[in-house]
Amino acid sequence: MNIRTDLAMEAHDAHGEQSLPGVKMETIGDDRDITICRVTVSEEEGARLLGKPLGTYVTLEVSAMRERDPALEERVSRCIAQEGRNLLGDMKKDMTVLVIGLGNWDITPDSLGPRVVGGLLVTRHLLETVPEEVDERLCALCALAPGVLGVTGIETAEVIRGVVQRVKPDLLIAVDALAARDTARLGITVQLCDAGISPGSGVGNHRMTLSRETLGIPVLSVGVPMVVYAGTIARDVMSRLGGVEETAIEETVNGVLRGSALEMMVTPKEIDQLVEDSARVVANGINLMVHQDLTLAEVERYLH
Amino acid sequence: MNIRTDLAMEAHDAHGEQSLPGVKMETIGDDRDITICRVTVSEEEGARLLGKPLGTYVTLEVSAMRERDPALEERVSRCIAQEGRNLLGDMKKDMTVLVIGLGNWDITPDSLGPRVVGGLLVTRHLLETVPEEVDERLCALCALAPGVLGVTGIETAEVIRGVVQRVKPDLLIAVDALAARDTARLGITVQLCDAGISPGSGVGNHRMTLSRETLGIPVLSVGVPMVVYAGTIARDVMSRLGGVEETAIEETVNGVLRGSALEMMVTPKEIDQLVEDSARVVANGINLMVHQDLTLAEVERYLH
Amino acid sequence: MNIRTDLAMEAHDAHGEQSLPGVKMETIGDDRDITICRVTVSEEEGARLLGKPLGTYVTLEVSAMRERDPALEERVSRCIAQEGRNLLGDMKKDMTVLVIGLGNWDITPDSLGPRVVGGLLVTRHLLETVPEEVDERLCALCALAPGVLGVTGIETAEVIRGVVQRVKPDLLIAVDALAARDTARLGITVQLCDAGISPGSGVGNHRMTLSRETLGIPVLSVGVPMVVYAGTIARDVMSRLGGVEETAIEETVNGVLRGSALEMMVTPKEIDQLVEDSARVVANGINLMVHQDLTLAEVERYLH
Amino acid sequence: MNIRTDLAMEAHDAHGEQSLPGVKMETIGDDRDITICRVTVSEEEGARLLGKPLGTYVTLEVSAMRERDPALEERVSRCIAQEGRNLLGDMKKDMTVLVIGLGNWDITPDSLGPRVVGGLLVTRHLLETVPEEVDERLCALCALAPGVLGVTGIETAEVIRGVVQRVKPDLLIAVDALAARDTARLGITVQLCDAGISPGSGVGNHRMTLSRETLGIPVLSVGVPMVVYAGTIARDVMSRLGGVEETAIEETVNGVLRGSALEMMVTPKEIDQLVEDSARVVANGINLMVHQDLTLAEVERYLH
Repeated sequence: MNIRTDLAMEAHDAHGEQSLPGVKMETIGDDRDITICRVTVSEEEGARLLGKPLGTYVTLEVSAMRERDPALEERVSRCIAQEGRNLLGDMKKDMTVLVIGLGNWDITPDSLGPRVVGGLLVTRHLLETVPEEVDERLCALCALAPGVLGVTGIETAEVIRGVVQRVKPDLLIAVDALAARDTARLGITVQLCDAGISPGSGVGNHRMTLSRETLGIPVLSVGVPMVVYAGTIARDVMSRLGGVEETAIEETVNGVLRGSALEMMVTPKEIDQLVEDSARVVANGINLMVHQDLTLAEVERYLH
Repeated sequence: MNIRTDLAMEAHDAHGEQSLPGVKMETIGDDRDITICRVTVSEEEGARLLGKPLGTYVTLEVSAMRERDPALEERVSRCIAQEGRNLLGDMKKDMTVLVIGLGNWDITPDSLGPRVVGGLLVTRHLLETVPEEVDERLCALCALAPGVLGVTGIETAEVIRGVVQRVKPDLLIAVDALAARDTARLGITVQLCDAGISPGSGVGNHRMTLSRETLGIPVLSVGVPMVVYAGTIARDVMSRLGGVEETAIEETVNGVLRGSALEMMVTPKEIDQLVEDSARVVANGINLMVHQDLTLAEVERYLH
Repeated sequence: MNIRTDLAMEAHDAHGEQSLPGVKMETIGDDRDITICRVTVSEEEGARLLGKPLGTYVTLEVSAMRERDPALEERVSRCIAQEGRNLLGDMKKDMTVLVIGLGNWDITPDSLGPRVVGGLLVTRHLLETVPEEVDERLCALCALAPGVLGVTGIETAEVIRGVVQRVKPDLLIAVDALAARDTARLGITVQLCDAGISPGSGVGNHRMTLSRETLGIPVLSVGVPMVVYAGTIARDVMSRLGGVEETAIEETVNGVLRGSALEMMVTPKEIDQLVEDSARVVANGINLMVHQDLTLAEVERYLH
Repeated sequence: MNIRTDLAMEAHDAHGEQSLPGVKMETIGDDRDITICRVTVSEEEGARLLGKPLGTYVTLEVSAMRERDPALEERVSRCIAQEGRNLLGDMKKDMTVLVIGLGNWDITPDSLGPRVVGGLLVTRHLLETVPEEVDERLCALCALAPGVLGVTGIETAEVIRGVVQRVKPDLLIAVDALAARDTARLGITVQLCDAGISPGSGVGNHRMTLSRETLGIPVLSVGVPMVVYAGTIARDVMSRLGGVEETAIEETVNGVLRGSALEMMVTPKEIDQLVEDSARVVANGINLMVHQDLTLAEVERYLH
């Protein structure tokens, strides 16, 4: 089935009861507001069938997220921090962490990454120039929003490699807006994974994958689904009917959504608010993950 | 069929070959880049079947609009001006014209109306205070973006009536973003009509319809489709299959698009650019319609 | 002296020790973070010398406002609510309150009013259509951002009068960005007054003043200084020198700030953030003033 | 005198009739709408007195720029292209050009650089992947907006060096918003120079200067003044008085503009429009400079 989703959990669900070799999914955690699900992909054959590289994918679903309750948002940020540290193993205080905000500032649903960069408590420059004035609980955090290939003319991975070579971080965190299959997940789901990233692709350009293998440092991805593609909805509706052939589905979908319309984005009306809120929660999740001994109140005081 | 569209042309097409009493559609004009189509609705029964009030609906389709060619944009603006004057009959130089920009500034695809207001050559205040300094070819133009009910707590029609009572215009022009059925029409179609407007509704709240009948002055609507609803695409795909019952369609669509997802907006990635471009073309169309003896170059010089 | 300020407190200070007939200034309140100052103008001669109409002007100065501490922001909002109610006398639960957000969306430092409108808990439409579903502690609140004369071609006061005639509110609250004399006050000062408003003027166009006298209902103004005019800074610096004649000051200032530069705005770099923060605090101040029995947490829950 | 300006022409004028060793200024060009001025700094002593590094600084002043006449804008873009090529000497077609948009997206008057990046006809990625589909008159252009130190925690020069190492351009063009002394120059002046750049500094951190010496490739800077600092206006006014001592000026200025107010920005009301317009003109200037054989109409067709 030609269902596009960046969420490993949805890709897994799309295979129904079918078991995939080396793929496991389990629901973990006992918070009544936050459902945590973990998909592990440990064999190449399962990875191929799932359409996701080897690695561990953790999803937080927070159905009440759109209510914008500050207390819940803080718990989600703490949960992102905790799950990120679980995926990464031990984080040390003298690490330098580089956060990459992927995506395009000018396209609202694609602007999550650059917005998260704007909400981080960056400290690396202070630790380099005035270390004695910096709270000793702070870790060296720096960040970059490298733009997208169509705007810069440079492969995003090339920009990142160039900066990694100079900054020499101990950990890379990449933030990006995702596409989901189910509209109900937009803006209320956070996926963390350790499988590496291929900025702006999916085309399996292996040279351009940024991962522990290619960079020599751990790479953590954090994403929030912001769009469903129009083509996904169209195919999804038809596949529910039962008894319709794959080719008939494709023909009908292509008849209704001519040309670039398959790529059109389905978003809720309040997408601007949704991106802003998601960016704040993810930025604070990373702030708490990296600056481990700070509370959110302390992070916010330092930010302003 | 539960297909939502604000374009009379699409509503007409949705009935296929079926003839509707008192409804006529014809393609007019001979410009190779701009296809002009006119739907006239002259009987209540046809209006009910079509889901559109009595009146004349003129649609300009400009397939090359997204190329952003200034020369083509100027021709589209002149065409809007001409078709608007045709619908209104004679426009006189000493008229006062009030333009209402409907919609919500904060939701990009709904912000066409407020943006058009920002691109108008408003002159009423100058003609009232320093008439001797004003080019005598200019007509008295004023404009308002009244906001939407959810933000203001006031029926938009109430705001408009209040302002009409004080400004006493001879003509009301309302600009609004529309919903289409076909994604291919987004941002490349302009609809003009003389049937009056019901801001923020469709629910037939007759008290709140603003029309020649209720206001005593002609009302011209100008709109550009900016979204297709997700539910429309889903239903549209299924209805193409043939042989699927209405109730089965609704059940399947509601299964995939739970809750508010039916109302989700399908937009192209470049929606910000599309709204900006459409607003400029429509604003200049109105500028040329109202200030009849000016060229676009003169309009732009006065604007800055 | 040709020092421009919208703050009665600064206008008073500009006269130094000199006593003005019927003008009194006193510092009130005992909150260590919020300094409250009240200027009362009770005689026409004092009003003329001060350059401010008869009325009471209350200023809250919050030097720590830029630290963006949520707890302090809540106290400032509650203080705005309390001082507003003090100025207005008794507020009843069955009142309809209309808030007018003055200023221009497109000019950041002038966008306070329209932004405040976006942060209000508007309820009037719900109380009119589904009263049984509305928390009975909520008052009928509605709001409008009418734009500015240069964009609409309509005197803002005309728009407001038109809407007042239809909505028939019991109280009008007008929000606007102000100009200060002292840059240190930008974004940290809130002025409330009961003297009425003259949108977009100062030129004493009495027909266009909106006040208890002209509208028959109380009018409360709430403003936050967002700019200092370049001319103010230039004159202020020179007048500190001592011994420089008024005419020499004007000549020199006009030599440096040719043409429209006198009107140029002096703003801090973080003006976007400052306007956003001020709008949130003022909007919540009005929310708490109008919906008297709600806590801020309840207001925020209803807003989303 | 403590007058801050990024324009070599203004720094030169501030020394009045005084001759500076190795500094020459001449007015060139015969276009009645565009005044072209060239300052050459060839001796270290002159550079120190002027406060500008060795190099050639070319300024275009276009007093009618704010009228937004498309024909004039095109002439200014062509003039930028021509003067850039003059400064750089021969430009070859097989060059790779990297444009750096300096500054902060979130602070309007500082956003010129990032906005220019958005208006460039970038081609490098197309020439690398589908060279046979690319108009052979196009040069390899790529671009990056690296952000500012306070947001990224990485010295901007470090980011640029990292990207230069990977992209290996033959020419670097850096675009930045400038500070002027005279408000009349805001938005109507373009400065080009070959002296290299020190992003975010002025503090003479030589390691961080990007120039032909440190990078081994030519570096062209293009800037437009967008702000005057409040402190500049205050000092400027006082220094015109004559007979006032330097220390008295500083004391008075610091009395009026306490703390961070010296750094406050003086901008015209229409700063958003001004930045947008300047970015378009500069971006097209660079497009024409790099893609030498294209007309502006061709550039715009390819952009969309």
